[in-house]
Amino acid sequence: MASPKIIALDAMGGDHGPEVVVPGAALSLERQPSLNFIFYGNSARIETALAHHPALLKASRVVHTDHVIAMDEKPSQALRRGKGSSMWLPLEAVKTGEAHAAVSAGNTGALMAISKILLRPIAGIERPAIAALWPTIHSECIVLDVGANIGATAQQLTDFSLMGAAMARAVFHIERPSVGLLNVGTEEVKGNDDVKAAHALLKSVELPLDYKGFIEGDRIGQGAVDVVVVEGFAGNIALKTAEGTARQISSYLKAAMTSSFVTKLGALLARGGFVALKEKMDPRRVNGGTFLGLNGIAVKSHGGTDAYGFASAIDLAYEMAQSDLIARLTSDIKNFHHKLSAAAQSQEQIQTSAPSTPPSVALGNAGE
Amino acid sequence: MASPKIIALDAMGGDHGPEVVVPGAALSLERQPSLNFIFYGNSARIETALAHHPALLKASRVVHTDHVIAMDEKPSQALRRGKGSSMWLPLEAVKTGEAHAAVSAGNTGALMAISKILLRPIAGIERPAIAALWPTIHSECIVLDVGANIGATAQQLTDFSLMGAAMARAVFHIERPSVGLLNVGTEEVKGNDDVKAAHALLKSVELPLDYKGFIEGDRIGQGAVDVVVVEGFAGNIALKTAEGTARQISSYLKAAMTSSFVTKLGALLARGGFVALKEKMDPRRVNGGTFLGLNGIAVKSHGGTDAYGFASAIDLAYEMAQSDLIARLTSDIKNFHHKLSAAAQSQEQIQTSAPSTPPSVALGNAGE
Repeated sequence: MASPKIIALDAMGGDHGPEVVVPGAALSLERQPSLNFIFYGNSARIETALAHHPALLKASRVVHTDHVIAMDEKPSQALRRGKGSSMWLPLEAVKTGEAHAAVSAGNTGALMAISKILLRPIAGIERPAIAALWPTIHSECIVLDVGANIGATAQQLTDFSLMGAAMARAVFHIERPSVGLLNVGTEEVKGNDDVKAAHALLKSVELPLDYKGFIEGDRIGQGAVDVVVVEGFAGNIALKTAEGTARQISSYLKAAMTSSFVTKLGALLARGGFVALKEKMDPRRVNGGTFLGLNGIAVKSHGGTDAYGFASAIDLAYEMAQSDLIARLTSDIKNFHHKLSAAAQSQEQIQTSAPSTPPSVALGNAGE
Repeated sequence: MASPKIIALDAMGGDHGPEVVVPGAALSLERQPSLNFIFYGNSARIETALAHHPALLKASRVVHTDHVIAMDEKPSQALRRGKGSSMWLPLEAVKTGEAHAAVSAGNTGALMAISKILLRPIAGIERPAIAALWPTIHSECIVLDVGANIGATAQQLTDFSLMGAAMARAVFHIERPSVGLLNVGTEEVKGNDDVKAAHALLKSVELPLDYKGFIEGDRIGQGAVDVVVVEGFAGNIALKTAEGTARQISSYLKAAMTSSFVTKLGALLARGGFVALKEKMDPRRVNGGTFLGLNGIAVKSHGGTDAYGFASAIDLAYEMAQSDLIARLTSDIKNFHHKLSAAAQSQEQIQTSAPSTPPSVALGNAGE
């Protein structure tokens, strides 16, 4: 049976505040009746919204604060003056153990910075990452890092692999998730030195995951692996490009279906199919980026989402809390991180004694 | 009036050889009757294919060679033993001035390596790039580098901007193309040091382009700019991810439209719309990656394309030859490269005297 979990919510984050956060929590509660919530923010607005959801009201507590971090505040600014804000308090509740997870639709950079300060990275982790759920043809996969950091060393990429695999176990319930390194080709000579070194490490060290080697960008959506690992610059660009492409095709489709009376009639008849397609492509279904590698669960919801989307972010936080992600991840890092470090060091020794690879072999395989 | 242009074709490149290359040339000739072709490869197979296209036959010359570079050959290997091959000879024809442009559907890495050796980079260019045409909601844009190199310095990114703008002038006939730097956010603090330094250079130096600042991945397909500049690792991943997303949505759409009798009937009625959509999403429409920054025009077609797709690659080669891309690009590099170098040097001096930026400001803005 599911044990009761307490989720701490930034009620003021995102474009809509309590008017989306509260009904979002109500939706999530319908799916997970054992959930409890703490709402942080303007108590009058929160309570007005809660009045429409009697079941949620019973499972909730409200903590008032007038202090809100703006969407355009810089991370450094948010760190200096964020204490006591509707974003800070939920993370503090996770830190003290009062809550099992925090969810916010607020400023990503601020949330990341405050999470890092309050929850601290897991021992051995140099850099937390942002993991995103990515829809695939079959179901979903996890892609990380989608923008917490710019660049990543080989060792950081292997940490991301461990972290992503732990999340896949928690969220997809797969004991030995498959992991791929995102690259510009699948041959061993492809990619930069960090990617190549990470590939060698992941191949040589026995880890609680099924390493599948390099994968290219077109294989993410095919569901080629459960976890796609990439440094944050390319990862963020991949995520945004996929979102943009989906929107682009939606607009093509709309134009095509309204181009004549007959296509409009056909589209009307095929309505059921379009509804199914819309559902499949609905970004709200997999709403929620997670900060992985910290001593606590913090989920970022899209700022512009609605109650349905916010509920997906809560569901994700719940799944991770429920499956004891942090304990499992901490133990994975403890058990495997030093093996990876040792392998990385011996790899470096080999590399410094060998001639370096000429840049000409870094040739991509664009167009194929 | 269009002056006659000679296109040198690797008849053996790609998955199908002359059986696609020859009908592709025939299609392109219908659109540009002033074209002439030289086919390199197995003359018997080429001539058999040419026999079906009497108009093309008249505009063509065949140069026999049995030597073909395999799709899986390494660039270094192709360089060593590629001389006299069906891929080498068209590039040699461009070098000697016998042809105005070369097109091949063969091995990308080999084609890039041989092009670089035979055509040489334009004076001042450290690294040629692969530029891809990218479909947008309105029309198309150019994205470079999509995989010739891994990583790029600030100066290389500014070179890519000049090169992309010159190509946009040639292909889109826009005198002052808009250029954006692909990044993980639009604020000045976002991105790695190279991207930030390139941004400062592009803002401060007067160039024959309209610099629009940073753009994120979701804006490429919206047609936010005519030219998108990015280093080759992230650029290749963006391109492949967009291709994968398009395929993924096609398969959703197919499943949705065949889910019931009524949706099938509706889809049948809306057929005209679906045909329009398919046309819009057809990767063959914008087939062709170009090696930019060399003293000659070399276009890479997708290896698996058909005659229609190969014709698009020839069209692109023709457009670039016709508009005298290389001369214009060489003059742009000559006129502006030293200004960018000077600005880069004074920037470096400022940077070394200022304290370095702390890594925490590199925070991405994933999920927003």
